[in-house]
Formats: sequence, structure tokens, C-alpha cells
Amino acid sequence: MYELGVVYRNISRTEAHLADALAHFGSATVHEAMGRVGLMKPCMRPIYAGAQVSGTAVTVLLHPGDNWMMHVVAEQIRPGDIVVAAISAECTDGYFGDLLATSFQARGARALVIDAGVRDVKTLTEMRFPVWSRAISSKGTIKATLGSVNIPVVCAGALVHPGDVVVADDDGVVCVPRAMAAATLEAATRREAAEGEKRAKLAAGVLGLDMYQMREPLRKAGLRYVD
Amino acid sequence: MYELGVVYRNISRTEAHLADALAHFGSATVHEAMGRVGLMKPCMRPIYAGAQVSGTAVTVLLHPGDNWMMHVVAEQIRPGDIVVAAISAECTDGYFGDLLATSFQARGARALVIDAGVRDVKTLTEMRFPVWSRAISSKGTIKATLGSVNIPVVCAGALVHPGDVVVADDDGVVCVPRAMAAATLEAATRREAAEGEKRAKLAAGVLGLDMYQMREPLRKAGLRYVD
Amino acid sequence: MYELGVVYRNISRTEAHLADALAHFGSATVHEAMGRVGLMKPCMRPIYAGAQVSGTAVTVLLHPGDNWMMHVVAEQIRPGDIVVAAISAECTDGYFGDLLATSFQARGARALVIDAGVRDVKTLTEMRFPVWSRAISSKGTIKATLGSVNIPVVCAGALVHPGDVVVADDDGVVCVPRAMAAATLEAATRREAAEGEKRAKLAAGVLGLDMYQMREPLRKAGLRYVD
Amino acid sequence: MYELGVVYRNISRTEAHLADALAHFGSATVHEAMGRVGLMKPCMRPIYAGAQVSGTAVTVLLHPGDNWMMHVVAEQIRPGDIVVAAISAECTDGYFGDLLATSFQARGARALVIDAGVRDVKTLTEMRFPVWSRAISSKGTIKATLGSVNIPVVCAGALVHPGDVVVADDDGVVCVPRAMAAATLEAATRREAAEGEKRAKLAAGVLGLDMYQMREPLRKAGLRYVD
Amino acid sequence: MYELGVVYRNISRTEAHLADALAHFGSATVHEAMGRVGLMKPCMRPIYAGAQVSGTAVTVLLHPGDNWMMHVVAEQIRPGDIVVAAISAECTDGYFGDLLATSFQARGARALVIDAGVRDVKTLTEMRFPVWSRAISSKGTIKATLGSVNIPVVCAGALVHPGDVVVADDDGVVCVPRAMAAATLEAATRREAAEGEKRAKLAAGVLGLDMYQMREPLRKAGLRYVD
Amino acid sequence: MYELGVVYRNISRTEAHLADALAHFGSATVHEAMGRVGLMKPCMRPIYAGAQVSGTAVTVLLHPGDNWMMHVVAEQIRPGDIVVAAISAECTDGYFGDLLATSFQARGARALVIDAGVRDVKTLTEMRFPVWSRAISSKGTIKATLGSVNIPVVCAGALVHPGDVVVADDDGVVCVPRAMAAATLEAATRREAAEGEKRAKLAAGVLGLDMYQMREPLRKAGLRYVD
Repeated sequence: MYELGVVYRNISRTEAHLADALAHFGSATVHEAMGRVGLMKPCMRPIYAGAQVSGTAVTVLLHPGDNWMMHVVAEQIRPGDIVVAAISAECTDGYFGDLLATSFQARGARALVIDAGVRDVKTLTEMRFPVWSRAISSKGTIKATLGSVNIPVVCAGALVHPGDVVVADDDGVVCVPRAMAAATLEAATRREAAEGEKRAKLAAGVLGLDMYQMREPLRKAGLRYVD
Repeated sequence: MYELGVVYRNISRTEAHLADALAHFGSATVHEAMGRVGLMKPCMRPIYAGAQVSGTAVTVLLHPGDNWMMHVVAEQIRPGDIVVAAISAECTDGYFGDLLATSFQARGARALVIDAGVRDVKTLTEMRFPVWSRAISSKGTIKATLGSVNIPVVCAGALVHPGDVVVADDDGVVCVPRAMAAATLEAATRREAAEGEKRAKLAAGVLGLDMYQMREPLRKAGLRYVD
Repeated sequence: MYELGVVYRNISRTEAHLADALAHFGSATVHEAMGRVGLMKPCMRPIYAGAQVSGTAVTVLLHPGDNWMMHVVAEQIRPGDIVVAAISAECTDGYFGDLLATSFQARGARALVIDAGVRDVKTLTEMRFPVWSRAISSKGTIKATLGSVNIPVVCAGALVHPGDVVVADDDGVVCVPRAMAAATLEAATRREAAEGEKRAKLAAGVLGLDMYQMREPLRKAGLRYVD
Repeated sequence: MYELGVVYRNISRTEAHLADALAHFGSATVHEAMGRVGLMKPCMRPIYAGAQVSGTAVTVLLHPGDNWMMHVVAEQIRPGDIVVAAISAECTDGYFGDLLATSFQARGARALVIDAGVRDVKTLTEMRFPVWSRAISSKGTIKATLGSVNIPVVCAGALVHPGDVVVADDDGVVCVPRAMAAATLEAATRREAAEGEKRAKLAAGVLGLDMYQMREPLRKAGLRYVD
Repeated sequence: MYELGVVYRNISRTEAHLADALAHFGSATVHEAMGRVGLMKPCMRPIYAGAQVSGTAVTVLLHPGDNWMMHVVAEQIRPGDIVVAAISAECTDGYFGDLLATSFQARGARALVIDAGVRDVKTLTEMRFPVWSRAISSKGTIKATLGSVNIPVVCAGALVHPGDVVVADDDGVVCVPRAMAAATLEAATRREAAEGEKRAKLAAGVLGLDMYQMREPLRKAGLRYVD
Repeated sequence: MYELGVVYRNISRTEAHLADALAHFGSATVHEAMGRVGLMKPCMRPIYAGAQVSGTAVTVLLHPGDNWMMHVVAEQIRPGDIVVAAISAECTDGYFGDLLATSFQARGARALVIDAGVRDVKTLTEMRFPVWSRAISSKGTIKATLGSVNIPVVCAGALVHPGDVVVADDDGVVCVPRAMAAATLEAATRREAAEGEKRAKLAAGVLGLDMYQMREPLRKAGLRYVD
């Protein structure tokens, strides 16, 4: 968590078939499948609508107004990774723009999740390189202070270990610890299997009250109807 | 306001021809036509741009992190309604997603206005089911506590009685009390009638200073020009 | 700064060829070219994505909930101007809508930058009249109190003198003082010239670590790699 | 709610013995006694610590940056009242200072609750005139626009009718509708009666787990202990 | 505004008798006396209640997370100065603690006004060295980047030139430009002279409605009373 | 991190002599001694000024609006502990009041650190039971959902393991991992030893510029003085 000036080169990534498969379900279903945990704060928003990705976390800890370590983390990216960037204090500066995105994309990164700001969002959108961030800001950064790469970080309220799976879409960002990935995929698959039928019933006008058999528990809880 | 565990089934909805006609004018004109009142706070934002709706309010009061009553309110929806959801304390959790939207849409709801979060916004956008909310969040909710349906609620700073008209667009959300709907429609119609001519003049280069005869009042107020 | 009730009619605008040329570079590059200064706060957001403009500032100081001076400033607009509106206290009301935009556009204004709210954003988007603002709000304003036109103002944390260049895009808004415009254009041009080659290298997989020769400084700063 | 330019002179105040008695219990207990409703948002903070009051609400609706109606409401104050001030849009200006406080105090007001800013807080503190507000700000206001007095208002998210009881202390502000005052006082009295014994037990080291017999419900809910 | 790496040693301070005299009136009266301008945003709060100071501004521009220039500005302090610190982007780090306060106090500084965070507030309170800041934070800063001393800065939304008068108290912070200091002092003196009599009348139960002769303007504006 | 419904009874607490000794240095010095890491966000504020404590963390994860687990964690408190409460989503409700404080104090807890709201702050202040929280709120909670006790939690942006040392004062809250406690105490002791002499020099008028030998590095970085 707090080691500064260190780059861990060998990390245990979640198996690709698990990390890849979770994107399909989206952050809400994955978070439910984990037991309603693992979400980053809702201030984390995508720079453009419609992106939906998952991948293995490569983490970086930066300091306010300093993006030096973004170049260091670039080298540690492998195809299928998502870079998760935490800052040691609150900051909205633009740590990342189209040049870094070109580099990240060339290394195989699928996305950036950063608890700070980004810039060049028009170009990033054209490149289809998705970013989830707390802010959009032209503010430039310096390159003066060491942070670390591939240590555990807290990003927007969520703990992320290198190698964990990150799932991000228009609803937000969730982190699935490596040890929970297989079970989460299974649970998410089960959840989704049940949804098709439910959706059809609801579309046909069946009420959730009946479909989920809520009338009796509501009555017991004291709900009363007044005409 | 504060009755918990009650569902009012019979509410006095504003007449449909009034409730339907107000959408055309948009929230800004309607709010002006009411005397510059009735607006929800500007933190209420649409999940996608371009939707513009009006309808009769069906209200629901929920508790933080608990969306049980969303299923109860679904049954009270009639075609042309807009569900207005208030929470008993500040909360950004995702109370509403694509399954509930399917149910609401099947019941004839035109939109949801909620002083909390929603999720599945990509799917909601594809379904063209518009939502105005304070947040977008994957965070799931539980089903444990009773609230109420069709009691008066305060939603994002505005008082909404069941049956009032809600008008929502990209600018925000306004609530028109039932008793004011006819007069508001009339005033909005008058306002709009005057706008076409004004727009043409302004487009031709006439200044508002002249069109609205502001030069004299400005001079009297003390405005001076320096070359 | 603090003169109230005054309209300066003759201001020294930055030469058009400088003011026009800066749009191309965008707010991030321009802010870097100035020495990483001049930005407005990141709460200033465009009402639609994709607009990228520059122009000469015409400034207006307004009071909370009062847009009277917007009509006064309209007369001072010349083709190529961008109106910069500051408020004497925090306010999110909708000071500006489609009628004023029609007037501003007819006078040749390229955009509005306002440290408050705007409304009619759907129509403004259709008109392609870009606005950068702190809020979107239907809330109407009154016309009762004098402010000033073409005095220096603080807008979203940035000092803007009439005649300065304003550059705005999806990343934010930057103000270039008139005296710095030529040098900033030159520096921005140099920055961009260097970027094409860098982008190509990064796209080919060259790392910033090598391209910027960061490995040695990082080592000296104490960075260590762990396998 | 939305009548502008009206002053209601005759309001039905909650009986004094009820309104006065509720102060003793504080906002948290009163809110619980009402069924966990009626609270204003936690952004409402006292200007000094330690004040604890209750009284009957006299309401006023003001506009952003305009405190004209504060002088109008002063005349409607009777001894034992608390003035509740709502603003028609978000505003942090200083609507109230030591002169108005002198007037309010002379009329018998016990406190001010305002969804905006106040100033002269040092003098107000010396006068022991308590105020709960969203902000402290030197910013002055004008006197130009009519609002209303003694209409129902939404203040910091809570609906307040003239004559309701307001209870405020260091924890926040709660509004008790007139019709619920007697029952709330009774419930609050019962709650408090039970607290003394509980406090003694807890102070003696008895656990809430045992005192409230939570062990079995927790076990049933699935709680497990790991050594 | 934007010169970096420069320290201006000779600044034109407002005459001491003016700068000293304004403290007495407090930020609200001074801001009114200036014509209701010059205030910093209300997020600027004192670290302890009761301090009320004025003095001549010595300004410093710092970067996020970097307090190097605080040591540079210390040398430029003369007795009677107040240090005004602006940051080039939003930051809440603790730029200032008890060691710097000891140095500032030894140089004769009366206070610090900083658009960021401070720390050691318990010791600062014991030292009676008042600070107005946006945040309190233990977060330390580095010493790596040049800013400037005694250039004009924007601090919490207010433009401050070196040598201007700063007035700060529990209500907030106001900056009086040097050229306006004498007139402001005169106006503030007049305002205050009138207040004693008004306070006595209001305390005696006279209403502002009558004292300010508001009844007729209110009636003309359309105010009506309902019994 | 994400185990729900579990109470770990045996945790490895940092040795008491280390945990106790850190209070003396305060959160700022301890955070610096750790290498400028470990801080909670500055939104965490003490309910009264002047408290300065350290102790071993007992952790609890709760859900929005539900304080059931506060009673479960009470049993796990040992003398010298500080309870650290995290919530699975943003919430400002009042999870903790005087009854729970009585129980916590009886068990030997030194403080509560909670990423949500508290109430009964007047009584807590009288009891001298310090709390650091994000909010003060009368809002009550329910007892319906299981969380966990003594799992690692993220509280206000900081990762806290059970048994870590928590240091809190007026400047904020820092968490020292158990493995770093001894080294941190040593570093903090060294830092403080150096401070007395520095303070004396600064009080005598020596400048930090000279004491820290900054003049040459500043000159090299390009700082220039203008007379």
C-alpha cells in the first residue's frame, strides 16, 4: 500500500478467460454477483458513453499534480490490462492525454481508470480509448516525484490489487479480487440467465410484486392500501 | 408527507390534455409561466440528452439503500404517469435498472424522476426510457423497509403531490401543482406565442436593449458608457 | 474589477489572426504553452461535446439571479468575440437561453463562457452555439441590478481582461492575456510540431521512458524494480 | 407553496406547551419519535455549538440574493416563534446579520433556520441568537423582489408549514407537523424514559447485543464468528 | 498574473493607517462599503472563531502539493502584512503548519489567507495566528516547483494585488484594492455610524418595515396581506 | 475486504507501547514520518476541537442507513482500541450516538472514526468521547443487514487493517499499518527532535530560506528577484 519508489514487474494476473468474460455482464451485475461490494464511488464517470470493458488491473500510485509514474506504468502493461491510477491526495489535474493513450493502446491496455482528471477527451473518444475519471481538466502535471507501480491502491474508495479484474461501463467501475473472479463469473452468469425470463414477464405486464412474491412480506411488514 | 407504510390507490390526476400539453414547452418556459417557481435542484440530470416529457406524478418515498417500494409503486402506474421518487435521506445508490424500467414502461410510465441514483443507463437509453436523477451508480439496494406511495414528497427540493404535472427535459425538472396546470398551460402558450417574433427580430440583429426598451431604465438605474 | 454600472465600449482586442489561430490547439496545449497557467476551474463544462473555439473576450459582471447586463453586453459584441460572464456571488441560475443566443449569434459571438447556469441547451445545441458553464438550470433570472461590461473579471477562478483570448474545448477553458497571445501561439505551434513524431513513435511501441530519456532520472530519484 | 407576494397574518400555531416541550429532547430523538422523518439535510449547521431550541414556525420564501422579505416576516413573529427561511434557488449569500437579529429577538423569535447564508456570526453568537444555516457569508443582498410569508416552504429538503414545530440543536433541524406534535411529544417522552436505564447498563459493561437480544437474530441472519 | 519564478520585492502597500483601521468594521461592512464586491468565496473559513484582522497583502502563487514558495514569501513579509496564497489548481493539501507560522509571526505577519489546506491547527490556535483556508489537512507538500511572490493572484475567486488591504473575520475574507481603501474606510465609517441608532430602535421593537419606510414600496410592488 | 457476515475475534494488535506513543506526534507528523501516506480524506473532521488520540484499529463494515454491526463490533473492543467504521456506499446518516458511545467507552474504546454521520454530538462532547466523521446528522438508522467486523476496510480513502494504529487530531486521521508502527514512531521521534531547534531559530527571525539552505536551489531553478 505504502511502498514508494517501487515497480513490481511480476504480478499474478487473473486468468484471461475470466477477466475477459466479465465485461459482458457490466458493473452492476458483477457488483451484485460479488455480494454488493467492490464498487468505486459514483464520481467516477466515463469520458464517453457506451464503452463496456473488463481487464486485469495494473496499478499505479501518483502524487497530486505529478504524472511521472504514468510513463513507468506504461512499460508494465500487457495486452488485456486496465491501468488503475490512484493519487496520494485529492486532485483533479489532467494526468493523461492522447500521447499517453497512444502509448497505452500500443501496449495493449484496454482502458484507464483514474481517481483524478484527464484531458484530450475529444481525441481519446475518437481513438475509442475509454477512460473513467473523477474529472476532465486541461491542467497539466509535472514529472518530479516517485510513486509506485503494481502495489495495492485505493482508487475512488475501492481497494485494487494488481492482477484483480476491473469491470467498467456507463454505470461505473467495480473491482473483482483475483480470488473471487471465478465465483463472480459463475454468479453473474446465473443472475443473467434468470433475467431474460423476468424481463419477458415484466414486459408482458406481470408485476414484480407478483413475480417476486412480495405481497405477503409487504403485508406482514405492515403495508396497507387506502382507496 | 410523513405517513409510512401506506399506498394511496386513488389519486386525483391532472386532466390528461393539460398534463400532455405541457411537455411541448419544456421546463424553463413552464417554470417561468408558473411565476418562476416549482423547479427541482439543478443536480437532477437526464441520463441521455434530448428527452422532453410531461405526465402526471405518481409518488414514492423510499429509504436509503432500499428500493422495495419501487415494486409497490409500479402497480399504481397508469399510462401517462411519471414516477417521482424521493428518499428519506441523501443517497446515490442505483435504485432502478432495466428490469424495473421494463415493468414501468409496460405499465405506461413515461419517465422516472428520482432524487438518488440509477443504473443500467446504457440499456435504459436503448429502451428510450428517460430518467432524471442525482447520480448514476451500479450500487445495488435491498428490499427491507416500508415507505409510502402517493403521499406528498419533497424531491430534489421541490414539493410534489400525486397527480401534479411533472415536466422534464435537458434543462431540468419542474412540478406544476394540479390546481395550477390550466393557468400554467395558458401562460406558457402566451409566452411562446411572443417568442417567435422576438427570435426573428433578434436574429435580424435587433438588440434586446431596443426590443425590450431597456435603454431608459438602464440609464435611470445609473448605467454609463465610457468610450 | 469593481466598477459597477459602467460599459466600456472601446477595448483593445487581441489581433484576430492570433485570436483565431489558437482554437486549433485546444485548451490543454494552449495552457501548457503559456507555462501551465490561465485555466478556469474544471467545473466549467461544455453543454455539448465536440465544440472547439477561440475568440476575443468581451466581459460582463452580473449579480446572482439577475441577467439584465446580458442584454447590455450583447451590443458590445463584435464578430469573433466570446462573451465571458462572471457573477458577483455563487449562483447556478439559467442566465442565458435560446433568445439571447440568437442575439449573440446575430452579433457574431462565437460562444459564451459563464460562471453560472444556462438553459434551453437542446436548442442551443441545435443552433451549434457552444456554451461552457458551471451548471444547466431552468431557473429564470430577473432584470433589476446593474453590473458592468468590459471590466476585468474573475470567471471560474481565472482573471479575464476584455480583449484577451479565450480558448475552449471539451477539456475546459483557458484565457490567454492579450500581451501573451503571440508568444503563446508560437509556443503552441512548437509543441504541436513535436507531437506528431512522438505520437508515431509511441504508436509503434516506443516507451515514453525511452523517448523522453526518463530511465536515468528515475533511477537517480531512487526508483527500483522488483521481479 | 407557490403564491408570491402574499403575507398570511393568521396562522395556526402548535400549542405553546407542545412546541416548548420538544426542545428538551433534541432533533435526533424527536425525528425518531416521528418515525424517522422530518429532518432537514445535514448541510444545515448551527453558527455556534450548544444551542438547543424549539418553537413554532413562521415561514418566509425569498429569492437568491434578495432579503427584502426578512423585514416583512419580522412583523409576523410572535414570542416563541422560529423563523424558517427558504430560497427559490440555491444561494449562499448572507441574508441575515446583527441588525435583523436584534429585530427578531425584540419580537420574541427564538432562532432562525435558513437554507442560505448568514453573517455577523460573531455578534450573533454574543447575542446568543442561534441560527442554523447552509453557509456563513459576508455577501450582502438587495431588496427588490417579493416573496411570501407564512406559506408552506421546502427548507433544506424538509416541508415546513407555518405553525409547525421546529426543533434544532447541534445534530441538525427537524420539523414536526402541527398535527403530529402531541403524539411526537408522547413518543419522545417514552423513548427518553427508556434511555436512562439503558445508559446505566451499557455504562456497566452490558453489551447492546445482550440488552437488545440481538444475538439470535444475528445468528439467524447468518453472522458467524471466527477465532 | 502569470509570471512564474519571480519575486517582486518592492510593492506599494496601502498606507498603514488605512489598512489597520479597516479590521474594526469586519468583512461584511467593508464589502458593503465597497459596493458589495471583493469577497472571497464562502468556502474560506477561519481555523478558530473570533479572529478579526486587516493588513496589507503580500501574495504568493503556489502549485498543487508544493509549498516551496511559502519560504520565499516569508522573507517579503513586513509587520502588518497578511499573506495571501493562491494555488494554480484546486488542492486541499496542508501547505502551512506551526513552523511556518512561527516564521511568519516573527516577520510580523498578522494572518494567512490560503486557497488550500493548513495543518497544526491546534498549535496555530494556541499561537493565536489566524488562518483562513478552504480546508484543514495533515497532507504534507513537497518543495520542487517555482511559483511567484507579489504578483496579482486570484484567491478563492477574488483578485488580490500585492499591497491591497485584506479584511478577514468569522464571516469571511474581503480584499480592498489599494486605490479604494480610503473611500472604503470613509464609507464603512458612515455605515457604522448609522447602525447604532438603528440597533437601538430595532431593539425597542421598531420594525425595519417602518424604520426603512418599506411599507409603501412593498405595497407598490404588489404585496398583499391576508387575514 | 469483501467477506460479509463475519466477525474476526482474534486480531493482531500493534503493541500497546507503539500504539499509545504515536498520539503525541499528531496526524501530520506521523503521516510525514510514514513517507507522506496513510491519510484519510480531509472531509473527516472531529466533532469537537482539541482531541488527540491514537489506538489500535478495530474495524467494522456497515451498509447505508444500517448500524446493526455497531453493536457487534462493541463486543470486540479492548481497552486502547479505536473503532474504524466504513460504509459500503456513501451515506451521511447518524450511525452513532450517546448510548453507543457509553457502551464503547465502557469497553475501553478511545474514539470512533466513521466514514458517515454521527449524532448526539453535544453529549459526546460532554462525555469527551471523540469522533471523527464525514457528517453530523440526526438521521437514524435501522438494524437489518449484516456487515463484518475486523476485516480490512477502506475508510475515507485509507485502507485500514484490524490492529493497525490510528492517529487522529484536529488536522485529520492517519492509519499506520502494524508493520510500520515501530519505524514510524522512530522517524516521528527524530522529526520532532529536530523541530524544537528549528522553531527557536524561526522565532528569532531566521528565515527558512537560510535555515534550510534553499537560496541556491531556488536560484538554480530560475527564481529571480525584481526590485
